[in-house]
Amino acid sequence: MNIILVEAEEIQDKIVQLSGRRAEHLSKILRCQCGDMVRIGIVGGNLGFGEVVAISKKPYLATLRIDASQPPPPRPAVDLILALPRPIMLKRILSQAAALGVGHISLIHSRRVEKSFWQSNLLEKEEYNEHLLLGLEQAAVDTRLPEISFHRRFKPFVEDVLPDMMRDYAAAILAHPPKGEGGTGDSIAELLGDIFACGSKKSGNAGRQSDKRRILLAVGPEGGWIDYEVEKFCRLGFVCGSMGERILKVDTAVVVLLGLVGQM
Amino acid sequence: MNIILVEAEEIQDKIVQLSGRRAEHLSKILRCQCGDMVRIGIVGGNLGFGEVVAISKKPYLATLRIDASQPPPPRPAVDLILALPRPIMLKRILSQAAALGVGHISLIHSRRVEKSFWQSNLLEKEEYNEHLLLGLEQAAVDTRLPEISFHRRFKPFVEDVLPDMMRDYAAAILAHPPKGEGGTGDSIAELLGDIFACGSKKSGNAGRQSDKRRILLAVGPEGGWIDYEVEKFCRLGFVCGSMGERILKVDTAVVVLLGLVGQM
Repeated sequence: MNIILVEAEEIQDKIVQLSGRRAEHLSKILRCQCGDMVRIGIVGGNLGFGEVVAISKKPYLATLRIDASQPPPPRPAVDLILALPRPIMLKRILSQAAALGVGHISLIHSRRVEKSFWQSNLLEKEEYNEHLLLGLEQAAVDTRLPEISFHRRFKPFVEDVLPDMMRDYAAAILAHPPKGEGGTGDSIAELLGDIFACGSKKSGNAGRQSDKRRILLAVGPEGGWIDYEVEKFCRLGFVCGSMGERILKVDTAVVVLLGLVGQM
Repeated sequence: MNIILVEAEEIQDKIVQLSGRRAEHLSKILRCQCGDMVRIGIVGGNLGFGEVVAISKKPYLATLRIDASQPPPPRPAVDLILALPRPIMLKRILSQAAALGVGHISLIHSRRVEKSFWQSNLLEKEEYNEHLLLGLEQAAVDTRLPEISFHRRFKPFVEDVLPDMMRDYAAAILAHPPKGEGGTGDSIAELLGDIFACGSKKSGNAGRQSDKRRILLAVGPEGGWIDYEVEKFCRLGFVCGSMGERILKVDTAVVVLLGLVGQM
């Protein structure tokens, strides 16, 4: 936890009272005392500092006076379409994606998604938000939770939802593993490099951020998209990109892809 | 498991008998029958195919006739120095690093590494090899386990071991988070881009692989390297590189870094 995130509703007259995990962190890990300043963020709102005005153990309780005047950074310039992964993997993906930065995650069905994954209680907002918050608390520079949407049927998603979505993006890339040996196709790094004109600019990350146009990445299930699905995406303007010959797990692939975008 | 990996010692006259996890995978997931061909690799050796000559359940057993004549790809062009992470995180890092490709991992002590981490039985070869194998089985194109070495004291490592190691590398980069707000420094993506002349070549991944010179990446513990450690690395020729303003967990950072190198 590299920043204390609070909900706007928790603040009354610039004061927030904490119990549980956040109060324990202030007390046990940061060893805060009255008068100490800690970095805070209001979920979906500004960043700033909190002054510890009271703190105690057994039970862990802390009261902060909040000053949050710094706006959060621009929304990350990348969104994700993800074939719904196994819940244990989805947890890791949500927190890592929130840490790396992503605007919106559309979790969709596809042929190789096990139907049972749609029964997970991780699909409830209070459950998945917890993992997104863990990622934001780690990254410590953003207050915006990625938006999540669920699409339980593939065809209605690609035919009715996706065409409208496509208007928002400068580029849409489908991560599609190479077929057979040796067949690599265009690499996603090259596709992204062309979009960002990688290597041609030497300004800092922050400076380049503003040049970005939004990118949509689609990552399939373990075993990949089926041909029908690939065709549907490509007809809407998606370009297939390879991640090399090594077959990556979905969570690894998502971190590599968001890392590539974030580091460009 | 996208490839069946066997040890050379398991093969007698091109025949290998499997029980346990690999036999179960052949039977339950791949639903193999006699005569089927599956991709195999000999750990540290060639890649090839295995023909199923016998297979049964309860208990799961399988016998393969092996033909492995394809040499593995070149050793990945990147090595890693990693401040020993918490064991549960190290497990994930080992399998993901093996999947993404890394030649050697030096696990070292540093000020912010908890001493108790050195007590983990994950530091025993048969324990950590299991996680490296999971990564290779996932990637399905390599048979070489990353080499692992342990260095329980920081100073003897950087003063006695590292200077000799440095001769093998075209570049050595220290992942060092930015200090304070706004201070980003050179980004690691730019440093790597300069090394690989990112974006200037349009040949496929395989073609570019041969141009590579070896790179050494050093990733610190949660909380980062201390100033003394940074200074020691820099004196040996390491360049500090930023991964941006977002603070990443060590496992996320390692995947992003190896992903960057692998995609270049």
